[in-house]
Amino acid sequence: MSLLLRNGRVVTADSDAICDILIEGETIVSIGRNLKADGAEVIDCTGKLIVPGGIDPHVHLDMPFMGTFSSDTHETGTRAALHGGTTTVIDFVLQKQGHSLREALTEWQGRATGTAVGDYSFHMAVTDFNPSTKEEIKDMVAEGITSFKTFMAYKGALMIDDAQMVGLMQEVRKHGALVTAHATNGDMIDTLIAQHRAQGKLSPLYHYLSQPEVTEAEASGRFADIANYTGVHAYIVHLTCEGALNQVRRATERNQRVFVETCIQYLVLDASLYEDEANGAKVVMSPPLRQKKDQETLWAGINQGLVQVVGTDHCPFMWEQKLMGKDDFSKIPNGHPAIEHRMELLFSEGVSKSRISLQKFVAVTSTNAAKIFGMFPRKGTISIGADADLVIIDPTKKHTISAATHHMNVDYSAYEGWELTGKIDTVLLRGQVAVDAGQAKVGRGYGKFIKRGKTAF
Amino acid sequence: MSLLLRNGRVVTADSDAICDILIEGETIVSIGRNLKADGAEVIDCTGKLIVPGGIDPHVHLDMPFMGTFSSDTHETGTRAALHGGTTTVIDFVLQKQGHSLREALTEWQGRATGTAVGDYSFHMAVTDFNPSTKEEIKDMVAEGITSFKTFMAYKGALMIDDAQMVGLMQEVRKHGALVTAHATNGDMIDTLIAQHRAQGKLSPLYHYLSQPEVTEAEASGRFADIANYTGVHAYIVHLTCEGALNQVRRATERNQRVFVETCIQYLVLDASLYEDEANGAKVVMSPPLRQKKDQETLWAGINQGLVQVVGTDHCPFMWEQKLMGKDDFSKIPNGHPAIEHRMELLFSEGVSKSRISLQKFVAVTSTNAAKIFGMFPRKGTISIGADADLVIIDPTKKHTISAATHHMNVDYSAYEGWELTGKIDTVLLRGQVAVDAGQAKVGRGYGKFIKRGKTAF
Amino acid sequence: MSLLLRNGRVVTADSDAICDILIEGETIVSIGRNLKADGAEVIDCTGKLIVPGGIDPHVHLDMPFMGTFSSDTHETGTRAALHGGTTTVIDFVLQKQGHSLREALTEWQGRATGTAVGDYSFHMAVTDFNPSTKEEIKDMVAEGITSFKTFMAYKGALMIDDAQMVGLMQEVRKHGALVTAHATNGDMIDTLIAQHRAQGKLSPLYHYLSQPEVTEAEASGRFADIANYTGVHAYIVHLTCEGALNQVRRATERNQRVFVETCIQYLVLDASLYEDEANGAKVVMSPPLRQKKDQETLWAGINQGLVQVVGTDHCPFMWEQKLMGKDDFSKIPNGHPAIEHRMELLFSEGVSKSRISLQKFVAVTSTNAAKIFGMFPRKGTISIGADADLVIIDPTKKHTISAATHHMNVDYSAYEGWELTGKIDTVLLRGQVAVDAGQAKVGRGYGKFIKRGKTAF
Amino acid sequence: MSLLLRNGRVVTADSDAICDILIEGETIVSIGRNLKADGAEVIDCTGKLIVPGGIDPHVHLDMPFMGTFSSDTHETGTRAALHGGTTTVIDFVLQKQGHSLREALTEWQGRATGTAVGDYSFHMAVTDFNPSTKEEIKDMVAEGITSFKTFMAYKGALMIDDAQMVGLMQEVRKHGALVTAHATNGDMIDTLIAQHRAQGKLSPLYHYLSQPEVTEAEASGRFADIANYTGVHAYIVHLTCEGALNQVRRATERNQRVFVETCIQYLVLDASLYEDEANGAKVVMSPPLRQKKDQETLWAGINQGLVQVVGTDHCPFMWEQKLMGKDDFSKIPNGHPAIEHRMELLFSEGVSKSRISLQKFVAVTSTNAAKIFGMFPRKGTISIGADADLVIIDPTKKHTISAATHHMNVDYSAYEGWELTGKIDTVLLRGQVAVDAGQAKVGRGYGKFIKRGKTAF
Repeated sequence: MSLLLRNGRVVTADSDAICDILIEGETIVSIGRNLKADGAEVIDCTGKLIVPGGIDPHVHLDMPFMGTFSSDTHETGTRAALHGGTTTVIDFVLQKQGHSLREALTEWQGRATGTAVGDYSFHMAVTDFNPSTKEEIKDMVAEGITSFKTFMAYKGALMIDDAQMVGLMQEVRKHGALVTAHATNGDMIDTLIAQHRAQGKLSPLYHYLSQPEVTEAEASGRFADIANYTGVHAYIVHLTCEGALNQVRRATERNQRVFVETCIQYLVLDASLYEDEANGAKVVMSPPLRQKKDQETLWAGINQGLVQVVGTDHCPFMWEQKLMGKDDFSKIPNGHPAIEHRMELLFSEGVSKSRISLQKFVAVTSTNAAKIFGMFPRKGTISIGADADLVIIDPTKKHTISAATHHMNVDYSAYEGWELTGKIDTVLLRGQVAVDAGQAKVGRGYGKFIKRGKTAF
Repeated sequence: MSLLLRNGRVVTADSDAICDILIEGETIVSIGRNLKADGAEVIDCTGKLIVPGGIDPHVHLDMPFMGTFSSDTHETGTRAALHGGTTTVIDFVLQKQGHSLREALTEWQGRATGTAVGDYSFHMAVTDFNPSTKEEIKDMVAEGITSFKTFMAYKGALMIDDAQMVGLMQEVRKHGALVTAHATNGDMIDTLIAQHRAQGKLSPLYHYLSQPEVTEAEASGRFADIANYTGVHAYIVHLTCEGALNQVRRATERNQRVFVETCIQYLVLDASLYEDEANGAKVVMSPPLRQKKDQETLWAGINQGLVQVVGTDHCPFMWEQKLMGKDDFSKIPNGHPAIEHRMELLFSEGVSKSRISLQKFVAVTSTNAAKIFGMFPRKGTISIGADADLVIIDPTKKHTISAATHHMNVDYSAYEGWELTGKIDTVLLRGQVAVDAGQAKVGRGYGKFIKRGKTAF
Repeated sequence: MSLLLRNGRVVTADSDAICDILIEGETIVSIGRNLKADGAEVIDCTGKLIVPGGIDPHVHLDMPFMGTFSSDTHETGTRAALHGGTTTVIDFVLQKQGHSLREALTEWQGRATGTAVGDYSFHMAVTDFNPSTKEEIKDMVAEGITSFKTFMAYKGALMIDDAQMVGLMQEVRKHGALVTAHATNGDMIDTLIAQHRAQGKLSPLYHYLSQPEVTEAEASGRFADIANYTGVHAYIVHLTCEGALNQVRRATERNQRVFVETCIQYLVLDASLYEDEANGAKVVMSPPLRQKKDQETLWAGINQGLVQVVGTDHCPFMWEQKLMGKDDFSKIPNGHPAIEHRMELLFSEGVSKSRISLQKFVAVTSTNAAKIFGMFPRKGTISIGADADLVIIDPTKKHTISAATHHMNVDYSAYEGWELTGKIDTVLLRGQVAVDAGQAKVGRGYGKFIKRGKTAF
Repeated sequence: MSLLLRNGRVVTADSDAICDILIEGETIVSIGRNLKADGAEVIDCTGKLIVPGGIDPHVHLDMPFMGTFSSDTHETGTRAALHGGTTTVIDFVLQKQGHSLREALTEWQGRATGTAVGDYSFHMAVTDFNPSTKEEIKDMVAEGITSFKTFMAYKGALMIDDAQMVGLMQEVRKHGALVTAHATNGDMIDTLIAQHRAQGKLSPLYHYLSQPEVTEAEASGRFADIANYTGVHAYIVHLTCEGALNQVRRATERNQRVFVETCIQYLVLDASLYEDEANGAKVVMSPPLRQKKDQETLWAGINQGLVQVVGTDHCPFMWEQKLMGKDDFSKIPNGHPAIEHRMELLFSEGVSKSRISLQKFVAVTSTNAAKIFGMFPRKGTISIGADADLVIIDPTKKHTISAATHHMNVDYSAYEGWELTGKIDTVLLRGQVAVDAGQAKVGRGYGKFIKRGKTAF
């Protein structure tokens, strides 16, 4: 089966051309002007942008949490992602402390296999590094899981200490893979949470005040320090603030490169939302939203090439779940639904408002993640032999975000009523029209697990 | 006329695919697998890399100097560039102090028009910024000259002071264009040169010792400071050392982006060469070669995304010309022939030795310069409608550099006898085979002037 | 003749004791409890502080300027200084470009000798460094003038370029002396002044806006860079802002020490005063007042030990003189009268408000300047054999600043109506009561020239 | 009883005078020229320096360790200190995890009371911060123990985590006291030790390689970060390296002041000693000795005012005790005997070699510690009413260090055979000749516990 995208403005991180794209089966076979393709289905893309399918390397689908699960399954989450132009997600497998990596992987595979609508891969979160976990690292790499997540917070559940960090980094480096970090100082945060609770300071604002900038800056610096010592490829997830990015900037002075991901919400929302006691829970996530000056830092970081990826940390909970913490911020499930709107928000706030170029838009939503996480050039670009993961955008169409119309399995939106410029018309995943005019065209189980290789950036 | 490159490994800054490229006339019309092109000439590229034609944004051709001229004309220089895979160069027009920009442009056009073999563009070096020069900025932008070079050294000839710098930056910013700088402290250097001469310290080593790292670090910081104040796009040419790059790194902390170019020689040669009194003149250039630790900084800077461009500052002089300074380093014409070997040297030392990825190689030799200097997407990438400027590389072929075989009009090479891995087989410029198997296939006057637009990065 | 200060709280930078001080002739001969001194005049100091006589290393007395002179002569200026507890000042001799250092020194000696009431010394401002000036450096050192001031601003009048700076520093270093700098980028400032004037922006606010923080930060960094290269002792005068102090802080990372002086006005006044068009001229000085955040930086700098000296840059002009610039900020004589109030202001704002300790107060008003400028231990401390320069302070007495009651020859005060805590009762200079209860007790010509030695810190 | 020191060169951090000092009982009553003191015992100090008695704020006497004790008791340790001019030491009380601060204090008092020959005070090392320890902080402050030590290393024995650190700092701040830190990353170090042992790398060199610079730089930065957040006075003990001092330097940019202590051995010994397998154990201490470049940093830090104190971390073990680790570096008792030689080493290597001034010598051996640790002005200076703790130094006398002649209870010296310039002749403690001509003149129990107040610097 052939599909021809006719006459679109095809934009990648390093190209920009009006042309056609011919797809056969799952991959792109030709790019050119006036391509002939007898029998191919034709989509007229005149006046539209065509960009590579988005990659969101930071999502939590169907994640067990406090006796419940994050509200998007691999099915609903990847379907919503597709609606928003994100054709591939990387979900986090969470090792249970005292158990093996394999066990966790099996559990996650059980939930994702045959259910995901969009393509997906896994990071392995190592929450208990020990001699037997150490042995599993190479097995995970062999499975195509080449990135190992660490938590420097959530002691007793997810956090590893610096001793484990050194050991893990050394082992991961041996296999040429990548270590990523949730880089916040869990000990400091736990103390501040406990103090606020003891003082009866229980509103969502105290979630924010329990994670001051220093908790992230400190841990980011520490993670970079240890990574530099061990020589491993390092990546900080969901970096939110000036203090943390400055640690990465200073690390450049010793010739180190630390990859940085921020998330869309940190670019466009700020901490003033926590002052709304009734709705603050909607933006309770970790790290919390920051200040305007931090937003400026993050936009600058993208343009400086020091922030390579914009993800979401998508981790939705229904309002009822959020209400578990209505009397105590520390009981609010942490997380923010954004998987569907990442690309349109960034397009509207970034490209349409001239903060970033179209090329940067592609780079931070897709190409860089593909390179860093070992999916390039199969994913992350528009080129011959690559998966035909393509997003057709009407760059000037206006539309409005609402929980009433979004496809994520969550009953509120932090962006309710936001009017955006630039709307996604059609999304292709491996040659199939996956979404068109707001309708999903592929079903449960269409998504494939993507085995990943090593970082090449 | 059609040309088909069959079955090459086509590599750009964001793609990597085995495929064919079909060219009609001057541009690429299709990229794909098994392209049909009846009547097209076919070049079999099996086992070869195909990358975008190189852009060298820092060359001095036929440059008047001390009563003579740099030894490569636009003809010989661009021809040598083509032999080395560089299909476009940007040459510096030098305003004469007391004269207009237009006058200088006319003079340079007189030498380049109808003679260049490869494509070329111009930077305008503003050496005398005053109310009437100010009026000419917009004219130059209209001519497609969107980058304005400043010299912070060479007082009395090329240098502008900080007062002129502020004014120039403000005016250039108004037109959305770019200011570049030779960022070294001319006053300090002039003093040290005079002191060394007064002390009878006249060998090439004193060229190096007259331009210590601080002279470049200081000026780089000052240039970044003024650029930040004025808000102009800023670019430092031929940055060589840790001290200077650290100024750029620190500027990132105030959310500033300063583009950085280094040159191939600073990555692969070091200052120990100045100790050879007989041959030191071969590497007398400004800034001088630096230390091994600076090379490490520059390679790291490329991978950090903080050094975007590798140029040459190609400014060749015959050995006889160099000998003007045999008894006094300060009389040695400054400059180094490298236009022909930039890409092969970087491929061999960078890609083959695994210091940088193939994508970075393309980015720093071509794509980034195209974006920064407003030639993208016509130049700098391989995409539909782009100029068919292509370089076919045999990635494993070994060859040896020698003045006896190179094509630059200069009778020595600083790389004499170096054995490189990776050799350029064929070069296309706007659809024409320009060089093949070491033979130039296009002639004097084939090169076109490229009008440039604004920075989009 | 003997004088006994009985039972004061004697505070130096490293001591704090209730005791007596016995003075014979000009110097201190004993410090102790219950000292016997038959025939000595006794001053009861119970409940009072006794601190070392203040040293103000930055004053401009009787300074020729725009066809007039700063309004305090060496007589009136040093008398006012004594009223405020400052027993020694260092005035700036300004070389005239094209003339010798000696000539300037002779001129200044002509005005100061026999007229000064308080002790004084000279810095030599080198405004034209050339082979013949170079020869004079050692002569000046022999005269006891061991600090050489440079201006990085005021081109055509006072400014030297970086070439001269290198040469001067090298020569000064040879003689173990000190180079100081007015570290602002004169070229940038001149441009901004000209632009504001051309735009009809003529109010005092534009004085401030013509000297943005970057102009000082840049020059401070450049001065530190060159000093580091030459290895000379370096000192930045009247540093005002975060950007500039950060340059000094960063220079510590290369193991450099740069001495820093701020002035009292930068600690207690801020740039909001320029918005008062009618009175803004009162605070027109260079560098201008800065922001609140800069005040915080300066107080912190004092406590960090990185700001060693609080001076005044006292350079008074009568209101009528200030009115020369009523229609054009650039014609307002630059300068601010503060010589009389430095110590009381710093005591009240610093010590009484617990921003600094009493020891720091002494260090930054006296001891550090004595050490840095080679007058220690004769000046700057309370010890045996030292000059009996002593200030008796009533630490809790409140009083109010007013032009109506101050002793400076200037008809306004930027501190009019300020109520201070802590008042100077009595001041001794070389064993004589110089001021008591607001009355001068020594007359014209009592002040001696102080020959200075080398920095010992 | 009276004692008159006649005609010495009396040097403090802010004075330098030839004069007499009259002592009555324990304190100084007069300082002056030709003091009369009928009946006083006279010591002729002509040609000698007199400086304040040294304060060593970092010693471990009679410290329980691995079933044994550090080999100097409070008696032998303070006696040796007196021989070396150190009249006051601050010893560390170590809370036992699970036990109270009071219990530890009582234990230490039991060993020190009535045995110490020189004056002493205590730091309280909080190794287990919890609700009940929290209550004890104010009690300790009331006892005159105003500095609280933390260990960021030695997990399971002494280390507290960052949660405890936050809580402790908040509580200590409330009482205006000081938190100090052994700032090294214990987790990283434990991992590296374990790895080296597992690899059979057991020689003393691996002690060094298990504590790379990053382990100290990281923890120093983290400690400064948390201190900045809590606003507590902070002090880093035994800082050894450039990386760590740079963290303190960078903290100055946010207006923070962190006090820094280095130890004499880090200024004069370097890591090359670990290569001597037979003797390396002599310099096994934590942090380990570092590189020459770090020594330069520390000397510079002293002159920059950023390193305020030179202590010893005196913690001696007999060679036989050291041999516990002859087959395994991790079993070597950590520690280095230096209490006796700190002042003479610093005088010889610092003052005699012109690296620091005499004033700096006094400041870093005595005055600064007195101010920071709340003993000023009773200790740390030479002034009226201060304790007559005085050291008489013959500044040009040469002598040689040897274990055969030193007074510490340890049978080797890391400085064996070092020839020093400048020898201590006589030491007074509270008005008594404590040591004279190498003989102790005061006995067991002469030393008093010094209650301390708050930091005033």
